[in-house]
Amino acid sequence: MASVKMILDLDTGIDDALALAWAVCDPRTDLIGVIASYGNTLVETAAQNTLDLLHLLGADNVPVFLGESHSSTTQSFDVMPISKAIHGDNGVGNIDITRSPRQVETTSGIDFLIKMAHQYQDELVYVPTGPLTNLSKALTIDSEIAHLIGNTTLMGGALTVPGNVTPFTEANIHQDPEAADHVFREQERLTMVGLDVTLRTLLTKKHTQKWRDLGTKAGIIYADLMDYYIEAYDQLGIDHRGAALHDPLAVAVAIDPSYVLTIPLNMRVTYDQESGDYGRTIGDRERLLEDTTTQVAVGVKTERFVRDFMDFMIAVLND
Amino acid sequence: MASVKMILDLDTGIDDALALAWAVCDPRTDLIGVIASYGNTLVETAAQNTLDLLHLLGADNVPVFLGESHSSTTQSFDVMPISKAIHGDNGVGNIDITRSPRQVETTSGIDFLIKMAHQYQDELVYVPTGPLTNLSKALTIDSEIAHLIGNTTLMGGALTVPGNVTPFTEANIHQDPEAADHVFREQERLTMVGLDVTLRTLLTKKHTQKWRDLGTKAGIIYADLMDYYIEAYDQLGIDHRGAALHDPLAVAVAIDPSYVLTIPLNMRVTYDQESGDYGRTIGDRERLLEDTTTQVAVGVKTERFVRDFMDFMIAVLND
Repeated sequence: MASVKMILDLDTGIDDALALAWAVCDPRTDLIGVIASYGNTLVETAAQNTLDLLHLLGADNVPVFLGESHSSTTQSFDVMPISKAIHGDNGVGNIDITRSPRQVETTSGIDFLIKMAHQYQDELVYVPTGPLTNLSKALTIDSEIAHLIGNTTLMGGALTVPGNVTPFTEANIHQDPEAADHVFREQERLTMVGLDVTLRTLLTKKHTQKWRDLGTKAGIIYADLMDYYIEAYDQLGIDHRGAALHDPLAVAVAIDPSYVLTIPLNMRVTYDQESGDYGRTIGDRERLLEDTTTQVAVGVKTERFVRDFMDFMIAVLND
Repeated sequence: MASVKMILDLDTGIDDALALAWAVCDPRTDLIGVIASYGNTLVETAAQNTLDLLHLLGADNVPVFLGESHSSTTQSFDVMPISKAIHGDNGVGNIDITRSPRQVETTSGIDFLIKMAHQYQDELVYVPTGPLTNLSKALTIDSEIAHLIGNTTLMGGALTVPGNVTPFTEANIHQDPEAADHVFREQERLTMVGLDVTLRTLLTKKHTQKWRDLGTKAGIIYADLMDYYIEAYDQLGIDHRGAALHDPLAVAVAIDPSYVLTIPLNMRVTYDQESGDYGRTIGDRERLLEDTTTQVAVGVKTERFVRDFMDFMIAVLND
């Protein structure tokens, strides 16, 4: 089987770090680059964390690019206090990870995405797990990529469950609802992996103990990272039973859609500040009878996904 | 095939009149009674309209019962101006229908529902197409019916699309969100047929012309009724392409679930007046990992449904 070419777009971030590990080691995909985004951290921090984690995972061949540093409607970005509480001040649970000898690429992440869309077309899978600012900007520069990219599987949104920032909006969408609306209206072959499914995939310290027991540097650091996240979920009252595998699920679905049940639906994102439902991902009444190229994940094979996630993690952390 | 026993709970109402016609003539179901509800009209008007329509359809054997006259949290009920605009001041498009010689039953609709739940159990299908006040009250009196009724298929709610009263709430749910929440939490084997699917089933004057062309009294009255509704949809800007077959779709799904694609989801209804999303039907975060007995329709085989709807209507209107 020819492996797909994958670009991750990460605001790294603890669950982004998990998504990165899966993408690095899954033989069904060839990770050709990571675009850094603002979100859980500043964009520069996300880029540095990504470089450092790739170094830790022995994947120094994967280039890292800078994406946008703030949303499409603001001039700057500050990390939200809740993001720091969940991911740590440095985005990776306040853990010191050995610094990578590498630097970010000089090409912008937007230009990289556009170039790869033209080069690989149907073969390219793009997985943004943060705000959709980078894809929206790329679409504005070159609208053709809407048809070119083989598949875009995003982590974000909440259709059938409440949001996690307000009852209406999920954190990634909330960062830049205008960009998200643009993406939902334009990007073809789009799959939304939102809170509808990710909140059903919980990891516990029983799982991370298995990584720690490997005794490798990567195993211990990833266990520390994830334990920080699990403790934050518990202390903030998000979930006392474990922490959701948001971003890894998007990577998994991008590689194998059969992890989830999806429904076809043309979506929009509300972004009227006055409307009371700012950042809501919802079916587009105006396009309800039209053909759709968007799939929304509404069910997940949790057991199979968590089992495969653990298998891949143990493989990559054991090297 | 043994036919199921069906109880309709209607706030009759133009699309309720269509649902009634389907239930009367479909050989797969035995309509054992209709409970009248407040909603599109006052409860007394809904009961009278139901009696008159049953008389028109030659179904004077079906008893009609009075349900609640107002929501579970109010002391009275006034018909909303928008309801009058859509359904006419009298609920049936301001059309004069010959008065039935019959009266409503003296038993209350609530008592009738409870009695039939015990009598028919799995065989009983209950289809409320208005507020859920009657079922909620029945559940309060006798919680056992939650397990007894074979299937409850309700028309109401909006999960993947915006509401039609506010961006969050659909008209039936909006009438009594507390009752709806009670039903979603307690009633087993529940199917929600909401705006998610009903807005995709449009009828036009081309369709109603076929009823008119039958030349029968029932054919002409039903064509007049539906044309009133189609014109209201057009003039109020709800949809210029046709009018949604809300209530008949619920009857169809109650008889044959394969008309729709459903997803399993434990739901709740918000009813905090201060919350900004009063009357929202949404997945229950607290019960996301629990087993569910609720199915939510999120896709519909529109062409097959409209074709079957027309076949049944022409059969019943031609008698």
